[in-house]
Amino acid sequence: MTAEIIAVGTELLLGDIVNTNAAFLARELAALGFDLFHQSVVGDNRARLSESIRTALARSDLVVLCGGLGPTEDDLTRETAAETLGVPLVHDAAVQSTIDAYFVGRHMCETANNRRQAMILAGGRVLANPNGTAPGQLLQKDGRTLALLPGPPNEFCPMVTGTLCPLLAGLTGSTIHSRTLRVFGIGEADLEYHLRDELQSANPTAACYCKPGEVHLRITAKAATEAEAEALVEQKAAVLRSRIGDRIYSECGRSLPETVVDLLRERQLTVTVAESITGGGIAADITSVPGASEVFSCGYVTYSEEAKRRQLGVRAETLERYTAVSEQTAREMAEGALARSGADIAAAATGYAGPDGAQVGLVYVAVCYRGQTAVRRLTLGSLRSREYLRELTRKNAFDMLRRALLGLGGLA
Amino acid sequence: MTAEIIAVGTELLLGDIVNTNAAFLARELAALGFDLFHQSVVGDNRARLSESIRTALARSDLVVLCGGLGPTEDDLTRETAAETLGVPLVHDAAVQSTIDAYFVGRHMCETANNRRQAMILAGGRVLANPNGTAPGQLLQKDGRTLALLPGPPNEFCPMVTGTLCPLLAGLTGSTIHSRTLRVFGIGEADLEYHLRDELQSANPTAACYCKPGEVHLRITAKAATEAEAEALVEQKAAVLRSRIGDRIYSECGRSLPETVVDLLRERQLTVTVAESITGGGIAADITSVPGASEVFSCGYVTYSEEAKRRQLGVRAETLERYTAVSEQTAREMAEGALARSGADIAAAATGYAGPDGAQVGLVYVAVCYRGQTAVRRLTLGSLRSREYLRELTRKNAFDMLRRALLGLGGLA
Repeated sequence: MTAEIIAVGTELLLGDIVNTNAAFLARELAALGFDLFHQSVVGDNRARLSESIRTALARSDLVVLCGGLGPTEDDLTRETAAETLGVPLVHDAAVQSTIDAYFVGRHMCETANNRRQAMILAGGRVLANPNGTAPGQLLQKDGRTLALLPGPPNEFCPMVTGTLCPLLAGLTGSTIHSRTLRVFGIGEADLEYHLRDELQSANPTAACYCKPGEVHLRITAKAATEAEAEALVEQKAAVLRSRIGDRIYSECGRSLPETVVDLLRERQLTVTVAESITGGGIAADITSVPGASEVFSCGYVTYSEEAKRRQLGVRAETLERYTAVSEQTAREMAEGALARSGADIAAAATGYAGPDGAQVGLVYVAVCYRGQTAVRRLTLGSLRSREYLRELTRKNAFDMLRRALLGLGGLA
Repeated sequence: MTAEIIAVGTELLLGDIVNTNAAFLARELAALGFDLFHQSVVGDNRARLSESIRTALARSDLVVLCGGLGPTEDDLTRETAAETLGVPLVHDAAVQSTIDAYFVGRHMCETANNRRQAMILAGGRVLANPNGTAPGQLLQKDGRTLALLPGPPNEFCPMVTGTLCPLLAGLTGSTIHSRTLRVFGIGEADLEYHLRDELQSANPTAACYCKPGEVHLRITAKAATEAEAEALVEQKAAVLRSRIGDRIYSECGRSLPETVVDLLRERQLTVTVAESITGGGIAADITSVPGASEVFSCGYVTYSEEAKRRQLGVRAETLERYTAVSEQTAREMAEGALARSGADIAAAATGYAGPDGAQVGLVYVAVCYRGQTAVRRLTLGSLRSREYLRELTRKNAFDMLRRALLGLGGLA
């Protein structure tokens, strides 16, 4: 079954508000197994709205209209839908008394306009709105289903999950299941090239989403039951796992920092960081994870050479002989942080983030664990932005922490 | 002139990402005087995309396609647009060498796929993309204008404001000039209410963009010449300035951290930070600014009580009597960091970021400068996300640093 979303409202067309309703509903409909091929926005204009409804009903089994159900002049959805479908609107006494009660309960004065909100498409079903006055509506006609939902997200979202989706689940015979494999250390183009055979299957589908420094592979399967869909996903995941290996760091939606914090908590270990190029960003990533206080006590932001010497004990001759951006300095930063903090594992990062300078993009990341220090040299190029270089550096630090904690190779 | 936006991408249809591009572009086009009647989303499907392009070109003077210009198999926008318009794609050597340089600069391997990104609609104009490999394109044909823009917002938005809009302004025979006033410390609803008269003018327009913890007021004027447009903008800016006062922290596109680093550099002062709730984030914000090394030497990430004692000298009895989240602890953190680092000004933050606990959202931010310490108590509420609470805390720290450096009131 195909579904299509039409958001109604001039404020959406003008960009005054972002169309979050469409994204929210799309996810819910996809999870129910609907195929989504179109989404559109139209303004508060009767002719264009009518045209959009006609087009949508001609190509989709389910059409959901969001917005334009309010009491004011420019709320045209109800009337336009009735006209377009050739279905009369009838006044619903039960809805009217709910609306009356809403106004009485809030000591507000009801205007004549509010009666319009009690008008229901003949033969349609009322979707109760506990968070506002305009109820939703659902009508089945000529093999199509049309739903009308209010626009304000605090009314729309609860109605979607609480009323619309359970009703729709009855209409479709299938269910879908998804899983995302998160991969660090292979570029999107590379991954797509090497997996191109696997990315072309129709069910389950597998799609690459490029994120800074990493790739997310989303597997989605459709089947009659949740268990079957899940089995299809697992089959595909197993194949991808055998092709990508330990560069997959998460299959359950956890980020790299979350994965590392999880590992530390499982093992009851603590981590510290010594940061130059990332300037506190690795510590900020760690502490962005709820419960980080179990595994993290302190971090050192040592931006200047003096701070590296004083706060971490990096030797003056190391800085002089090899400079602040060197394997040796990264090593001494990690080892100094570990010794001074009393943590079990330490990461350090030093490099040139630019934008100016001859060696922009040269970065050293060190991890010190169980008496061993590994240093990874990154040459990230000089054309990327300062923020991107710092983000890639942070992710490399988390990748090294993860690999060290799991005893995997590929550290340096 | 009518304009229409088509966003391309299955991830939009499935609700995996929210269509923020459409809202962003719609505002810019509305400011240029375009009428917007339709917006749509289609997936990575050649037939449906082609149909959408045809429909849009039949009813709108300008059609902007966002997304689907990448190097992978499911990036179909360029080829589908060419096919639909009956315009051949030609390989552009200049674009190719820009792409080659992009890969060389990043020490990355270019795959054959990337050549597709150098294919340009014959007769079309290239819109440079400094933030990625896929350039934008603009083609005028049969009285219609078609623009192709990359989907990632960090490539899309700069191309819209930097290249597309100036070009389109040329098409409409006028020029536009914009300026953004950045405001910290007043909510969007408040600002919109108090400025409602000023926000309704047609030329220049002034529109509020809500950002985490701050509001950006974008003024846009249209006129025959750049100088006239600029004068209109300045007129409007003067009025808004008189209404909002020193809560405007920037009129030239600088962020709060950039504004603070600028002030420190001008005054040849150095800053240090002591961070608990923000966990390194304030330091990361400072060091995100190029040239931060002139004003920042070191920072202290003291997440545990022990770290606050050991690294900053917070007294055990302060922690015991007032707890780690208190005015007293925030004060001692800032003063300890200042004394130990030798910096000229220090900021400290301690609080409950949640998600669990009775006092989530309670935060103290301290700034110590010229022998005086001010502490601001924030009650940010328990319903906001951990990340949002941390972000608001960081912005409050920068606001306090700015106010202290400028000698403004409103510190505590």
